[in-house]
Amino acid sequence: MKNIIVVLFDNFEALDVFGPVEIFGRMKEDFNPELFSMNGGLVESAQNFKVMTRSFSEINFEKYILFIPGGSGTRALTKNSQFLSKLKDLAVKAENVLTVCTGSILFSKTGMLDGKKATSNKRVFFWGEKETPGVNWVKKARWVKDGNIYTSSGVTAGIDMTLAFISETLGYEKAKTQSNEIEHIWNENPDNDPFAELY
Amino acid sequence: MKNIIVVLFDNFEALDVFGPVEIFGRMKEDFNPELFSMNGGLVESAQNFKVMTRSFSEINFEKYILFIPGGSGTRALTKNSQFLSKLKDLAVKAENVLTVCTGSILFSKTGMLDGKKATSNKRVFFWGEKETPGVNWVKKARWVKDGNIYTSSGVTAGIDMTLAFISETLGYEKAKTQSNEIEHIWNENPDNDPFAELY
Repeated sequence: MKNIIVVLFDNFEALDVFGPVEIFGRMKEDFNPELFSMNGGLVESAQNFKVMTRSFSEINFEKYILFIPGGSGTRALTKNSQFLSKLKDLAVKAENVLTVCTGSILFSKTGMLDGKKATSNKRVFFWGEKETPGVNWVKKARWVKDGNIYTSSGVTAGIDMTLAFISETLGYEKAKTQSNEIEHIWNENPDNDPFAELY
Repeated sequence: MKNIIVVLFDNFEALDVFGPVEIFGRMKEDFNPELFSMNGGLVESAQNFKVMTRSFSEINFEKYILFIPGGSGTRALTKNSQFLSKLKDLAVKAENVLTVCTGSILFSKTGMLDGKKATSNKRVFFWGEKETPGVNWVKKARWVKDGNIYTSSGVTAGIDMTLAFISETLGYEKAKTQSNEIEHIWNENPDNDPFAELY
């Protein structure tokens, strides 16, 4: 059973979170995803939905996966040194770090992607390249794995990345069962990225 | 601007909701999705996430779209005459009704799908056929439109249905822009249902 720390903040992108976390949440024998935010309590998505979270200070997992979504709220947080310091503390101890969309750019501000391959949302790809030029940003990729870090493109790419992560850690059959049960047409090839050249 | 009443209940399926509602929520000039439940307050998803809702009694929209997700919580509600009566009241006045996954089966218990074509989750398709045999259940369909009612297959099929609904009401370009921005590989053909024959 793997604990998953889902990092939320105001103006997170709802589907960045609830695509991957839907799958993890269904696999109750394998994963325990829990929602956390800096100060706990209700956090509001970019679509104005309020979701309950626990505070970072309540985290007491010895082992865990760190999951970081994107959303317009990442803009302010890339300049928030207190938040970034806490995010880095959490990431250093994580078995794996998974990021979706602009969550990749937010995570890159910890410095932990420097010299590594990563990807992000294609419409604001330039923002990552400008913000953290030390990262080897890969434009044409549905998702990228480098070491224990998985980063994905925008929003629903997070679902494909999550299925790949499950396939690589627990086996292809478990991932395929999930994609069939949620009736998701799984893009299994990380190089198949039809959105890379749109923007 | 169209209001959308999103019907939540304990043990709703998170991605049934936050796929479609992500898209509606992004289109702030066109849609106003709000989360409601029978009694309001925090409602818990099948994945144990708590989301804030307002009570059905607070609904004061003159015009609206009714959105009904699925999830294991639908089992009990198909036997809850008070809930079904309220759901029917809301549906009768709706401009459109959109259902996802077992939300279709829940909605069918209002009687409003009798004699109409509809679809649902493929893994529990037999349940709909048994529960409401007066519905013309269509097994091989990503989604089905009959009159002002759209019903979809399981979970992520709701995203494809939502994009089709937007395309038919606001034009193809608006829908395509959304699918590109959330980097969703839109299955635009309702007859392309790779999951119909799996179960």
